[in-house]
Amino acid sequence: MEGFGVHTSMWTMNWDRAGAERTIPAAAEYNMDFIEIALLNAPAVDAPHTKALLKKHNLRAVCSLGLPQKNWASVNPEGASAHLIQAMDVAAAMGAEALSGVTYGGIGERTGVPPTETEYDNIARALCAAAKHAKKLGIAFGIEPVNRYENHLVNTGWQAKWLIEKVGADNIFIHLDTYHMNIEEKGAGNGILDARDYLRYIHLSESDRGTPGEGTCDWDEIFATLAAIGFKGGLAMESFINMMPELAYGLAVWRPVAESFEEVMGNGLPFLRNKAKQYRLI
Amino acid sequence: MEGFGVHTSMWTMNWDRAGAERTIPAAAEYNMDFIEIALLNAPAVDAPHTKALLKKHNLRAVCSLGLPQKNWASVNPEGASAHLIQAMDVAAAMGAEALSGVTYGGIGERTGVPPTETEYDNIARALCAAAKHAKKLGIAFGIEPVNRYENHLVNTGWQAKWLIEKVGADNIFIHLDTYHMNIEEKGAGNGILDARDYLRYIHLSESDRGTPGEGTCDWDEIFATLAAIGFKGGLAMESFINMMPELAYGLAVWRPVAESFEEVMGNGLPFLRNKAKQYRLI
Amino acid sequence: MEGFGVHTSMWTMNWDRAGAERTIPAAAEYNMDFIEIALLNAPAVDAPHTKALLKKHNLRAVCSLGLPQKNWASVNPEGASAHLIQAMDVAAAMGAEALSGVTYGGIGERTGVPPTETEYDNIARALCAAAKHAKKLGIAFGIEPVNRYENHLVNTGWQAKWLIEKVGADNIFIHLDTYHMNIEEKGAGNGILDARDYLRYIHLSESDRGTPGEGTCDWDEIFATLAAIGFKGGLAMESFINMMPELAYGLAVWRPVAESFEEVMGNGLPFLRNKAKQYRLI
Amino acid sequence: MEGFGVHTSMWTMNWDRAGAERTIPAAAEYNMDFIEIALLNAPAVDAPHTKALLKKHNLRAVCSLGLPQKNWASVNPEGASAHLIQAMDVAAAMGAEALSGVTYGGIGERTGVPPTETEYDNIARALCAAAKHAKKLGIAFGIEPVNRYENHLVNTGWQAKWLIEKVGADNIFIHLDTYHMNIEEKGAGNGILDARDYLRYIHLSESDRGTPGEGTCDWDEIFATLAAIGFKGGLAMESFINMMPELAYGLAVWRPVAESFEEVMGNGLPFLRNKAKQYRLI
Repeated sequence: MEGFGVHTSMWTMNWDRAGAERTIPAAAEYNMDFIEIALLNAPAVDAPHTKALLKKHNLRAVCSLGLPQKNWASVNPEGASAHLIQAMDVAAAMGAEALSGVTYGGIGERTGVPPTETEYDNIARALCAAAKHAKKLGIAFGIEPVNRYENHLVNTGWQAKWLIEKVGADNIFIHLDTYHMNIEEKGAGNGILDARDYLRYIHLSESDRGTPGEGTCDWDEIFATLAAIGFKGGLAMESFINMMPELAYGLAVWRPVAESFEEVMGNGLPFLRNKAKQYRLI
Repeated sequence: MEGFGVHTSMWTMNWDRAGAERTIPAAAEYNMDFIEIALLNAPAVDAPHTKALLKKHNLRAVCSLGLPQKNWASVNPEGASAHLIQAMDVAAAMGAEALSGVTYGGIGERTGVPPTETEYDNIARALCAAAKHAKKLGIAFGIEPVNRYENHLVNTGWQAKWLIEKVGADNIFIHLDTYHMNIEEKGAGNGILDARDYLRYIHLSESDRGTPGEGTCDWDEIFATLAAIGFKGGLAMESFINMMPELAYGLAVWRPVAESFEEVMGNGLPFLRNKAKQYRLI
Repeated sequence: MEGFGVHTSMWTMNWDRAGAERTIPAAAEYNMDFIEIALLNAPAVDAPHTKALLKKHNLRAVCSLGLPQKNWASVNPEGASAHLIQAMDVAAAMGAEALSGVTYGGIGERTGVPPTETEYDNIARALCAAAKHAKKLGIAFGIEPVNRYENHLVNTGWQAKWLIEKVGADNIFIHLDTYHMNIEEKGAGNGILDARDYLRYIHLSESDRGTPGEGTCDWDEIFATLAAIGFKGGLAMESFINMMPELAYGLAVWRPVAESFEEVMGNGLPFLRNKAKQYRLI
Repeated sequence: MEGFGVHTSMWTMNWDRAGAERTIPAAAEYNMDFIEIALLNAPAVDAPHTKALLKKHNLRAVCSLGLPQKNWASVNPEGASAHLIQAMDVAAAMGAEALSGVTYGGIGERTGVPPTETEYDNIARALCAAAKHAKKLGIAFGIEPVNRYENHLVNTGWQAKWLIEKVGADNIFIHLDTYHMNIEEKGAGNGILDARDYLRYIHLSESDRGTPGEGTCDWDEIFATLAAIGFKGGLAMESFINMMPELAYGLAVWRPVAESFEEVMGNGLPFLRNKAKQYRLI
């Protein structure tokens, strides 16, 4: 994972053949190095079809997901690892470089109380099995801390590092997201500092998930700290202007967070690219 | 409402006689102009006792609440207005200047879909009745936009303004909160700009609800914009280091957000006061 | 003065016929509302020629200058007012709306000691005479605070306001510059707050006078505060990538402050326009 | 050099016995790890007296200077190296750890044109000789980039690195200053990134040289980047509220930049210490 990419939610949240055919050439037009594909329903994906399109357009890919409730790792570690393994197989068949996201639980998973040791033990078990499978497949495997409302288990870079060290696998990476960091970290730079040993991927998402550069994220601090730690991983723009109703609940998107697709791609994307260049990350 | 105050959650979330006796002298020691009291169970409050203590310590008070699920205004406007009216009576009996907070719904209220016209119509009905009662009592009545996860109904300064104008009452004010603005507004200043005609109260709460000055809120932009609109209302520091488990769910507080009470009061409070002085707000 | 403009130093610092012919159509191509023309040698300008070009390209203009040493107002108020009056006559003949800049002294004027009462008295005399002439001509007349190194006399918005009130003229406006504010003001917003009663023009110039958006200026605070005071004046981008050696001394430009003209116009200009739109100033 | 210190200009700019006796115990009261002493007139310093006082109060020291015009390295490299060597001898006799500052030229040195190769060749010669002497004495030797107005030779971290590599000495360090970085660097973090290989000392000075925390410096970016590069050097607060007239010219201080000594030490110092702790630098 390296270079500058974009989450495919800008074009579709439904990764069927039509979605892939619309998205991949469009992302290539914007000179992306890679795309992030949400694997919401891995078995339904036509992996060879995606693989061929990626190759044709010279794009790399990263896959991401959150676990469905029946397979939350905190309560059903076997269900979780089976789910992850299946998704990894599809990701590998697509030629994707990694599976990441809320791979340790659900988007919207909250018990109403702080996390328990049992929950973390279960999660560690699931992640351990999944990491082994990832190694066998030769793909990278990541975990993404999300904010306190989307999950009660892993909210910060520090917690992600702690969890990886608890699992003890040597091939799990941290995937940060500036939107969540803006809520959870004591200065966005601190999340990067805490995660630095394992950090290989970052979502560049504005504070309201709208147009990058038009919110409250401190992009200078973010990019300066990334540059200072020698970050070489993937920079993925994410904006949620195209959300399916069934995803909106966990993500709590109730209104348009940007004026239009054009605003995000026409203003937000150049903003991020210029800022990344200013700090010599791309 | 004016001057610099603090939410009493710093000392207690249980406003009984013991809580009041511990909190009011403590807040006075910090030279607060006012305190904000959470009216979670208005009927249980000994209002004359609080009134006497406030007077003795020369403190003013503002009350706040969120509605319990059975009285959410979106579905039960009569229950909501009765609940608000009862709370106002208690607030007035305490000598408080205002009732504010998530007075239009629940903390944690989400239907899973965007707000509907019916929900807003119901809310407007409840707020209209409550505003009339506030006028009779001579106290101010406010609504506080909260972030997308805590409520799907009023997330921004613009929505709060729109709702007040829909109700048509001339005595509802907007109560902003920098923590929520950091997530929802396109630049913290924009929330203040949108709310300016009705803005009379603001929670100064850091991006993680921890120690002010040690998060991602852009305090310079916040205070400069407040100064520029000629803000004369109440500035209330809020930090959640003392949360009861039953409140933690809606607020999603799973870990300590500050090292200690001393850190918040010893570092965060001077930070906010200095910043407010720098922009000549106090 | 209103709308979004650009200092013509982007194209030329020599306002002869060739400079005007190169600059005016170029600025119009970028959809500017107005241009700022440096009147370094007013008598040499072919005013009707400029006027005709401005009209043809539907552009408005503002003129600016700093006084040459022999006419510094602090020591030679008559020389200063004569110089200003001559420049105003040329500006008016061009159809310009205003004469502004360091109209009270020199760029690089420093005595080595703090300003004296005599210096300010002399300046007030010169400005008073110039303001009267401006009124007669029907053009606006401004003063621009600059940083401590460029002048020891007027460094802040507060000092500019004080000076205008000392002069007592009712038609002098303040012209701020974000580059100087970044050095002199206690938070960029405070300069705007101090100047607000007289503020009609602002240079949008980055902290190193390079590409806007790629320095240390706090553009969110600047635009939020401008929006909050209801600023309706001219927003003029300024970048010094094309400086003549004889100007470089006062401005202390020793190295290229941006990669290229294209970087400033291609990245910096959209950055400023998007930010101004975000805060609804244009 | 390590820990948190303060420039002695807070107490005196005249390092005689009285100045030392007033300053050293006062700095120790504020729990400083070290002080920075301006060696404006090295031969006049009673070094053993300072050494004894430092020992008694358990304080370390760093010395700094700018060269007088007759000894500017760009034109008189021998004069410069003799001047530096004499100052280093005094610094070593005091028990100071380093000599730093504008050791390559004058504060206020400007030719009016960009630097020439001859100037840099001369400077390199002077620094080379001085660095050798520093090695013999066992003290560190630093160069501090200053802004374009104070010197035309070394304005940025990048230029300082280039100059050190031109000299070829292995014991010259870079000494940054946030005040100058705020004017010269493309984001304060970039100055730190450029200087990182040689960075051992940094002045924490606000954008107007007043009270830290009440200006336009982006302290979060600064501290996050320092933390990210693993900075272990000295952090020295600097504020100019006590400037002698003969220094004011080069520094261009024409008005009080803070309300009082108490404001700087009572508000600014805790601000910087809290921010340094937030990013785990102290």
